[in-house]
Amino acid sequence: MPLLGLLPRRAWAALLSQLLRPPCASCTGAVRCQSQVAEAVLTSQLKAHQEKPNFIIKIPKGTRDLSPQHMVVREKILDLVISCFKRHGAKGMDTPAFELKETLTEKYGEDSGLMYDLKDQGGELLSLRYDLTVPFARYLAMNKVKKMKRYHVGKVWRRESPSIVQGRYREFCQCDFDIAGQFDPMIPDAECLKIICEILSGLQLGDFLIKVNDRRIVDGMFAACGVPESKFRAICSSIDKLDKMAWKDVRHEMVAKKGLAPEVADRIGDYVQCHGGVSLVEQMFQDPRLSQNKQALEGLEDLKLLFEYLTLFGIAEKISFDLSLARGLDYYTGVIYEAVLLQTPTQAGEEPLNVGSVAAGGRYDGLVGMFDPKGHKVPCVGLSIGVERIFYIVEQRMKTKGEKVRTTETQVFVATPQKNFLQERLKLITELWDAGIKAEMLYKNNPKLLTQLHYCESTGIPLVVIIGEQELKEGIIKIRSVASREEVAIKRENLVAEIQKRLSES
Amino acid sequence: MPLLGLLPRRAWAALLSQLLRPPCASCTGAVRCQSQVAEAVLTSQLKAHQEKPNFIIKIPKGTRDLSPQHMVVREKILDLVISCFKRHGAKGMDTPAFELKETLTEKYGEDSGLMYDLKDQGGELLSLRYDLTVPFARYLAMNKVKKMKRYHVGKVWRRESPSIVQGRYREFCQCDFDIAGQFDPMIPDAECLKIICEILSGLQLGDFLIKVNDRRIVDGMFAACGVPESKFRAICSSIDKLDKMAWKDVRHEMVAKKGLAPEVADRIGDYVQCHGGVSLVEQMFQDPRLSQNKQALEGLEDLKLLFEYLTLFGIAEKISFDLSLARGLDYYTGVIYEAVLLQTPTQAGEEPLNVGSVAAGGRYDGLVGMFDPKGHKVPCVGLSIGVERIFYIVEQRMKTKGEKVRTTETQVFVATPQKNFLQERLKLITELWDAGIKAEMLYKNNPKLLTQLHYCESTGIPLVVIIGEQELKEGIIKIRSVASREEVAIKRENLVAEIQKRLSES
Repeated sequence: MPLLGLLPRRAWAALLSQLLRPPCASCTGAVRCQSQVAEAVLTSQLKAHQEKPNFIIKIPKGTRDLSPQHMVVREKILDLVISCFKRHGAKGMDTPAFELKETLTEKYGEDSGLMYDLKDQGGELLSLRYDLTVPFARYLAMNKVKKMKRYHVGKVWRRESPSIVQGRYREFCQCDFDIAGQFDPMIPDAECLKIICEILSGLQLGDFLIKVNDRRIVDGMFAACGVPESKFRAICSSIDKLDKMAWKDVRHEMVAKKGLAPEVADRIGDYVQCHGGVSLVEQMFQDPRLSQNKQALEGLEDLKLLFEYLTLFGIAEKISFDLSLARGLDYYTGVIYEAVLLQTPTQAGEEPLNVGSVAAGGRYDGLVGMFDPKGHKVPCVGLSIGVERIFYIVEQRMKTKGEKVRTTETQVFVATPQKNFLQERLKLITELWDAGIKAEMLYKNNPKLLTQLHYCESTGIPLVVIIGEQELKEGIIKIRSVASREEVAIKRENLVAEIQKRLSES
Repeated sequence: MPLLGLLPRRAWAALLSQLLRPPCASCTGAVRCQSQVAEAVLTSQLKAHQEKPNFIIKIPKGTRDLSPQHMVVREKILDLVISCFKRHGAKGMDTPAFELKETLTEKYGEDSGLMYDLKDQGGELLSLRYDLTVPFARYLAMNKVKKMKRYHVGKVWRRESPSIVQGRYREFCQCDFDIAGQFDPMIPDAECLKIICEILSGLQLGDFLIKVNDRRIVDGMFAACGVPESKFRAICSSIDKLDKMAWKDVRHEMVAKKGLAPEVADRIGDYVQCHGGVSLVEQMFQDPRLSQNKQALEGLEDLKLLFEYLTLFGIAEKISFDLSLARGLDYYTGVIYEAVLLQTPTQAGEEPLNVGSVAAGGRYDGLVGMFDPKGHKVPCVGLSIGVERIFYIVEQRMKTKGEKVRTTETQVFVATPQKNFLQERLKLITELWDAGIKAEMLYKNNPKLLTQLHYCESTGIPLVVIIGEQELKEGIIKIRSVASREEVAIKRENLVAEIQKRLSES
């Protein structure tokens, strides 16, 4: 039976069930007759062909389609985010979805394995972008741009274990704002925190807090605690997990997996419990171990200045200096920050939201230099809004409240109560479209009036214009309000003006 | 010298130049001394390390970054396109950048080889999307959607030979509008043509023409001319090249490469010269060969009805029934169309534009059924706006005219003529931001006033608010118009209101 090897899986199952049915009368029962097997094979092959059995329609693991409902929510949120970026003077830009693989390597630390590579089809080795920061740095270095304030909204791709429940996907949208250039200390850094505050307040997601630290303080703390310098980045990655894991598990990872001495881990443990306002910065200046470390002192000086500016921006009370904040990515060199939503008591009927980081960023003064042949540096600081998490939160809230969104913006529907009025409807809708009015009609020669009115109610179209024999004869049009069901007759030639008047009033 | 094998290329060149310099005094001249070679190797290695010689910074072949200038032009054009789609009642949606490879195979005919595949990293076999139509059909089938009017703006990827001169890239943006569902004939089809007209008129690209044909007429013509059915799609692909190639070259391809009999090719040649309005449709009904073909007759009937609706939409004079239009993609089943800009006489100083197709589409009634396990069909018709070509045309025109675009939207700049006024500037800009005003300042503690004013002029910021010692003492702020250089003093507490008044007036 050489054919069997070629059978697709579902056909195999069909064949098996054929073979397992009672033997035919002419057989001994112990062995199936040749004709029965041949028939089974044939039937399966035929079925296989007719039903395309091997073809299961689906989309790639960890990805999803965005329905019109999703898109409406996204558009609103992105509009708010982008208009904040523009308010702060940022320019838009975009980079290709993929980069040369070597552009992306050695930028992301432990996470590099999660990059999507493209197949080698006889050209360059390419990978899908993993964030928008590295392509931005590559852009600056390649075009020798020394100064730029830009935002970038785009998709990035990571081969993470997808968690649909938490709204984590392998393809997701990032919204980044960055300031590149040599400036006086902490002014751009403070503006980044101001932007995060404006966006999170604007989105009305509830109370939030921005944790702030500095990579130089993190490294200084590691040095002060006795972490060998070769382990700095690895230990930093462990600390970064403190928002998802308990200290004892992070400690275990550092000691058992990363070979840190237990007493060193415990010293770190003392520090990472510290968080507070500007007073904690002052306190750390007095810390016997930290204050011996040059790097840490520089970081503390900058944080002090940062808090001064944050006070002028009126957002100091939203900021917490937090020694447990480490940020996972390798490229940070100075101030780092992460905004978290504060859990509010769950209201009746509301499901508790999985609250976490909704924005983050920091200073990365060395990244552009990594791309420059001579290592010329361009200092940068920036932020990324966790829009996917925000989309998820807003969608969950709407679901809980039973809120519905209109997925179209249609203002007027063109209807008729009579048969053979397609031509008049087409003429009428042309007038509306040409006047810039959003209009729809049914693609039927003779639709029922009830069907037409029902369409307006179900899709939220506010106005209907109705044309029939009577109206045509008298040179009038009826305008109907879907909500109130009121109808008025107007002169045909006043149609556009009357519609525009009603739309501007509503 | 085992080290040499490890040297990168630029280091090799440096080594070579060292070895080629004049021999040292202690050498015979014929053979270089050991110490000299060793020195050369060492120097090269050091250089190699310092200058990262192997790293050439670039982006993938056929792709490009979109600068802020590009983005501004794009945003304006896309806004116009999307608002037209919304005017016709379309909903937005999005699909992942990649699909299962098998979703995309056997949909694009001869072009399938141009797909970007992802590397097999131990999961599914994936490819980057090649257009937005196949993912839309997959979406409809997967979600059992029988009716939908949607638009989709997104990137697609094709491994074509990039032609930067013609604005053709391997990553490009598509803007699609499609109507899925079983409706009365030609109503949605006519609306698609209306949309193309609205968009091309709105963009003011100059005069244009939409060529229309029907796949059933193309196939009927092939049958009538004696093309074997097995060659229909291949010959269709050749005909599709008529807008770029002369008839004699297309004929050669059909005969020499695709094995068509010369007399059959010549019969096709007679037809593909025909183009005209609705009168040509009437004429083809009388054609002795075409009128024998059932498929062709169906196509002609539909075109006749289409022209009736196009007349009601007021766009019939923009449409040309063109028998040379074939469209390359396999999935079309009915009406097909392609919009071309008509070459206008080149004005003085203007470079002649490479005019070509700027929008296209057609009816594809079988594509959704290819994804349905039971083959259930959902008829579809749609269009794609060639926005990349449009971006290119608009950018070229602006370049010719020397037009410049602002890449930021900043309305107000916060300046000071004095030292040590950072705090006051920060307080002032906070007020503006919090009132929703787009504002910038320089990130310097003590910028010069001239530098600040120059920044406004070079970036097009219209208003400056100025604060100095005098103003602070008197509780006033100066507002300066950058264009007129006029300055007025206003009360500090009226700042936001005064700025808003001025912005609403301009």
